[in-house]
Amino acid sequence: MNRSYRLILSCPDDLGIVAAITDAVARHGGWITEAHQFADPDHGWFFMRYEVSADSLPFDGDGFREVLSPIARRFSMQWRVTDSERRQRVIIMASRESHCLSDLLYRWRSGDMAFDIPCVVSNHPDLRDFVEWHGIEFIHLPVDPENREAAFETLDSLFQRMDADTIVLARYMQILPPFLCERYRGQIINIHHSFLPSFAGANPYRQAAERGVKLIGATSHFATPDLDAGPIIEQDVVRVNHHNTVADMVQLGRDVEKTVLARALRYQLQDRVLIHGNKTVIFQ
Amino acid sequence: MNRSYRLILSCPDDLGIVAAITDAVARHGGWITEAHQFADPDHGWFFMRYEVSADSLPFDGDGFREVLSPIARRFSMQWRVTDSERRQRVIIMASRESHCLSDLLYRWRSGDMAFDIPCVVSNHPDLRDFVEWHGIEFIHLPVDPENREAAFETLDSLFQRMDADTIVLARYMQILPPFLCERYRGQIINIHHSFLPSFAGANPYRQAAERGVKLIGATSHFATPDLDAGPIIEQDVVRVNHHNTVADMVQLGRDVEKTVLARALRYQLQDRVLIHGNKTVIFQ
Amino acid sequence: MNRSYRLILSCPDDLGIVAAITDAVARHGGWITEAHQFADPDHGWFFMRYEVSADSLPFDGDGFREVLSPIARRFSMQWRVTDSERRQRVIIMASRESHCLSDLLYRWRSGDMAFDIPCVVSNHPDLRDFVEWHGIEFIHLPVDPENREAAFETLDSLFQRMDADTIVLARYMQILPPFLCERYRGQIINIHHSFLPSFAGANPYRQAAERGVKLIGATSHFATPDLDAGPIIEQDVVRVNHHNTVADMVQLGRDVEKTVLARALRYQLQDRVLIHGNKTVIFQ
Amino acid sequence: MNRSYRLILSCPDDLGIVAAITDAVARHGGWITEAHQFADPDHGWFFMRYEVSADSLPFDGDGFREVLSPIARRFSMQWRVTDSERRQRVIIMASRESHCLSDLLYRWRSGDMAFDIPCVVSNHPDLRDFVEWHGIEFIHLPVDPENREAAFETLDSLFQRMDADTIVLARYMQILPPFLCERYRGQIINIHHSFLPSFAGANPYRQAAERGVKLIGATSHFATPDLDAGPIIEQDVVRVNHHNTVADMVQLGRDVEKTVLARALRYQLQDRVLIHGNKTVIFQ
Repeated sequence: MNRSYRLILSCPDDLGIVAAITDAVARHGGWITEAHQFADPDHGWFFMRYEVSADSLPFDGDGFREVLSPIARRFSMQWRVTDSERRQRVIIMASRESHCLSDLLYRWRSGDMAFDIPCVVSNHPDLRDFVEWHGIEFIHLPVDPENREAAFETLDSLFQRMDADTIVLARYMQILPPFLCERYRGQIINIHHSFLPSFAGANPYRQAAERGVKLIGATSHFATPDLDAGPIIEQDVVRVNHHNTVADMVQLGRDVEKTVLARALRYQLQDRVLIHGNKTVIFQ
Repeated sequence: MNRSYRLILSCPDDLGIVAAITDAVARHGGWITEAHQFADPDHGWFFMRYEVSADSLPFDGDGFREVLSPIARRFSMQWRVTDSERRQRVIIMASRESHCLSDLLYRWRSGDMAFDIPCVVSNHPDLRDFVEWHGIEFIHLPVDPENREAAFETLDSLFQRMDADTIVLARYMQILPPFLCERYRGQIINIHHSFLPSFAGANPYRQAAERGVKLIGATSHFATPDLDAGPIIEQDVVRVNHHNTVADMVQLGRDVEKTVLARALRYQLQDRVLIHGNKTVIFQ
Repeated sequence: MNRSYRLILSCPDDLGIVAAITDAVARHGGWITEAHQFADPDHGWFFMRYEVSADSLPFDGDGFREVLSPIARRFSMQWRVTDSERRQRVIIMASRESHCLSDLLYRWRSGDMAFDIPCVVSNHPDLRDFVEWHGIEFIHLPVDPENREAAFETLDSLFQRMDADTIVLARYMQILPPFLCERYRGQIINIHHSFLPSFAGANPYRQAAERGVKLIGATSHFATPDLDAGPIIEQDVVRVNHHNTVADMVQLGRDVEKTVLARALRYQLQDRVLIHGNKTVIFQ
Repeated sequence: MNRSYRLILSCPDDLGIVAAITDAVARHGGWITEAHQFADPDHGWFFMRYEVSADSLPFDGDGFREVLSPIARRFSMQWRVTDSERRQRVIIMASRESHCLSDLLYRWRSGDMAFDIPCVVSNHPDLRDFVEWHGIEFIHLPVDPENREAAFETLDSLFQRMDADTIVLARYMQILPPFLCERYRGQIINIHHSFLPSFAGANPYRQAAERGVKLIGATSHFATPDLDAGPIIEQDVVRVNHHNTVADMVQLGRDVEKTVLARALRYQLQDRVLIHGNKTVIFQ
């Protein structure tokens, strides 16, 4: 994949947005390799993601930003330009269950997904060996009723110190406090082991077994102060039947959880996720 | 498909149930063409469905029942023997939307599914022509706030007079009163246009659009006095994205609804659905 | 859905294509409601589909064409502008099996898909009644070894006389001669009852059963002189197991066939299918 | 999961097979926890898999075999009784690509699937570190044109010495010679990166891209002397579109490959796979 600059923007919908952008790109010889746009007529809002080949432009990312800046002002855009070669810094948080963590570490070490992992944080020491084998720092940060508040302050400092772009809750079984969800809005990706909004909260597989559903699922969403209610990034399901116990569902569900989480993270790493109220626009 | 007798039973789990049944079948030369069983360890309950080739037995269904009767008593079974050649009588109820009704009528007239339709009942006259073209009686039974009670009494009489085995609510947009749900427990199949338990009640596609889910679904379940809370027979989903409006979801959902409803009815017609508390055992 | 003009084009990839188009649209106040583009780096070819709200433009389709014409010449585009309110004329061809035909007629009469059906053509008379109930002309055109050539000449005249945009082979069990496939290249949509390229030719479900595959499928593609080898528009699959006989597969497959065919036709009606060598670009 | 004995058998279909088995089980107080059977009417062959709770029987596996032995002789059964607590010995073979191997090692170390890995064999040294971190022996066995024959002889001895039950070709990019496929018939599970029978042989993703299919897949099958033509155990697919390059397909395909291979191995470990000519019966 060749280096490209990614322009991601949203703004009130208006005449001439695309023309202004494409004209600016074309005037500098920019080669658009991927283009997505979406106008939400209900809210009169416009979303766009363009990839422009870096080689085709006579300047770097900052030059590109300079060229786009007046257009952005004119249309009151929320916008950013990212560089496909800059790897995001992703902190992974886990508890004891390793399926999501293992899957992400595999994708990291095999190059299947390009990102840096400044550290893995867990409230249990169990996964230390496996993480450290990868040459990644493992931070054991116990969270219990007495130290909850202090622990989350530590976490906050850690996110800052590690300069994290994205935090992945890879079956991290603690509920983050509202102040963290708000400070890192749009940066914390959680995997919930149900097809939300069904079975939010604890023991979703048990809830699913009790309701007798014929499909179980997993949902990746941004963490917000409301538990399991943030913008959904990705979901998927798998078929179950009367033979399946809660234990079977846990097992079947693991494969869906890790797939859904990996897809959500991939979208995030490629700047394909735009938050739109309590929903997401995913430009795949 | 050759004629067969279907033995469907459930009872407290115990030693020797299968042996007693298979021995009785074998002693009379019965040829088992399909066999399913399930023991729920949590509730200590046993479920079974056997198909025995009719040709292989020296007696008819009543003779078969006579042979099985002492075994059924011994193990306190709820049981029945049905004849694959006896077509169920299915009343279809619809409102204005025709996708589920059209699909079922196609399956009926093409022989894809074998059942009789004594009549189609609707609270609107719109679908009369199409139904009558099939040579099927169409009964227009308006339901409005003033006549609700009387209308449902009429419906009850109709179910009796028509000797209905199964009633299909093919997007019939009225809520049946508890007395009907109870009198025809396990006989009334509804299709709800969401992936239950998410989005029960009215306007599920609107609810889904507002929540920003990435998959929408449909659920076929038995009607019970609790709205959209009866035993689930079948579910499925389809992928949506940010481009999809509520109207798009309605359209995409129709195809899932009719597929899910047709599967559920097929299981019911083949005596593959056993109710187990508020869940179902489906022997496919 | 509001009226829109659809611009569909392909051309050698070059700098400034999108800028030229979007500038022309913006200069006339055009409101882009949907935009898709794709550049194939292997072949250096560019594909685009834009929807522009008709209300936003100060001219009609011809005026729009006039504005775009110089740009089209400059970039050597193959292009067209279509009107979302102009319904395509679709001739459906069937034999005896009615599942695909029934499904398409349901979608037509319910308004699920907007198109006109000048006639249904079949080499068997079986489906006459059902078609005529819809008020659609049914043409029985037998094809047998003696009259094959004449029959296909008749078909050709019919396509011309009926001014057909698209011809759907809805399980029409005759192989069209090369001259028809060529004359109507990109206009004839076939449904093949296998997951191509597996099991081309006759009896695909028997072939699938013999090979012991665990999924069976259906493929909608443009008819070309090479049997079952034209550009694929859409495919899907359904799970089977050792219990399923060829007859079961035929039944299970019908639901996939009609779904896949309906999707392919929907893409075609909305001008979302661009042919690219022996492949398709589908802008959904 | 409690300990159980699994009875797996196939034989010419006949009257009284199930009765004889269930009677023998019941006479000794055996508790059947899972039961599957299948009669293939085309070939007159019968297949069965029963799980009987070990606790419920007054003898061990050998005692069970003794009880069943006369019945097996009477019906000319191919049969075996396995113990759910005996872990199969599975040799995993890989080349350079680690997705399938990583996935299986995760399932092994997390207990998701219960089996022993006497060693991992590879024709490349790349994966040594990761394998050895698990405490599993890594055997580097280069295969090149000069030493092919000797290498495969070594492999044969290794299978013997390691007392392997199952050999998994986890993207092992060498074609095993016919003598190995025959000696270990029903024991060697391969994953092929296409939806067979489409795209057998080399570079299936390139073949898929060239044909323009809309779904790509993976197939797990038993290795036989005919390349990619052995009995299929499991298959699955994933959707692709015109944007996807061959490289994208390789990436998307990896996830399908590892899922399909893991499912196939799980069936094999639980004695759920019965070979039936060139097909499989999978009792799930």
